[in-house]
Amino acid sequence: MKTLLQRGFNGCGVQDITSAAGVPKGSFYNHFESKEALGAEVIERYWQSSSSRLAILRDASVSPLERLRRCFTSQVEALVEWNYERGCLLGNFAAEMSDHSTVLRARVAAAFAEWTRELEQVIQQAQAAGEIPQGSPPAALATFLINAWEGAVLRARVDKSRVALDAYLSLAFDKVLA
Amino acid sequence: MKTLLQRGFNGCGVQDITSAAGVPKGSFYNHFESKEALGAEVIERYWQSSSSRLAILRDASVSPLERLRRCFTSQVEALVEWNYERGCLLGNFAAEMSDHSTVLRARVAAAFAEWTRELEQVIQQAQAAGEIPQGSPPAALATFLINAWEGAVLRARVDKSRVALDAYLSLAFDKVLA
Repeated sequence: MKTLLQRGFNGCGVQDITSAAGVPKGSFYNHFESKEALGAEVIERYWQSSSSRLAILRDASVSPLERLRRCFTSQVEALVEWNYERGCLLGNFAAEMSDHSTVLRARVAAAFAEWTRELEQVIQQAQAAGEIPQGSPPAALATFLINAWEGAVLRARVDKSRVALDAYLSLAFDKVLA
Repeated sequence: MKTLLQRGFNGCGVQDITSAAGVPKGSFYNHFESKEALGAEVIERYWQSSSSRLAILRDASVSPLERLRRCFTSQVEALVEWNYERGCLLGNFAAEMSDHSTVLRARVAAAFAEWTRELEQVIQQAQAAGEIPQGSPPAALATFLINAWEGAVLRARVDKSRVALDAYLSLAFDKVLA
């Protein structure tokens, strides 16, 4: 996962992956039919490993709007800590593989869809609690915010700067959800 | 440019590029020091070829807000027409190469910066004309909208659907710029 996250799907070979894992290259095909099959598995694991993000969104002891804020703020902090050198595996695979692998595309789409549903629920709760206005459909807000987040992460990596992330936090919460 | 846009920087080799151009592979290095040097040139050309986008943004015969709307609506139409199969070269290179080539990263950053400045000017004009409120700084709005756009394009490619693009148009204009 680390090798794929750092180098991209086409930026590394099976050899790089098995070397990083400290196993012989030949053993790879005992476990995976192809690099694509590993990629699909990695997307699944990456999404499961985002459980801290989901834990924040589901923490009923915190107000819905504050949960939304913490979800993105914690990710900003992580990106800054990594010097903007690790992006989002979903966004990376989306850019690289959407038009080249139906298997990987479907896995990325499923992960984005699940994240969107999670966010949508919290937005619904924030609307019900009167923390944000009722006007916009929660599904559209969730989709927009997740996509805008992915774009902000990409830009922060290009600029090696938090400007894009700060613009995201400020406008997502002061305009989109206000 | 077409080959790099379709396959990504790491998804094609020099051979693929020279084949697509109908020239012998050996001739490549008469023109470019490396594939990276070609990539940098392609980013520059790609950005220059976005002149229709800039022409829309600079068309003083149209109100600033309407120019912003046309700029993104025309890109949505193009993506739908291509069946979401071509993304944005800047976004693709950002995802793939930000951490692996300072040359490519710098070129992508420069193109995004120029696009942001262009958008910022039109947002300033829209604010001055009273078409959008003065509250948010034009530079932050421009950065946010461009990044959110890049994320929406990525998501449309993953979903092979215009849902992300419609959410973008609706929330960018009804919330972020309203």
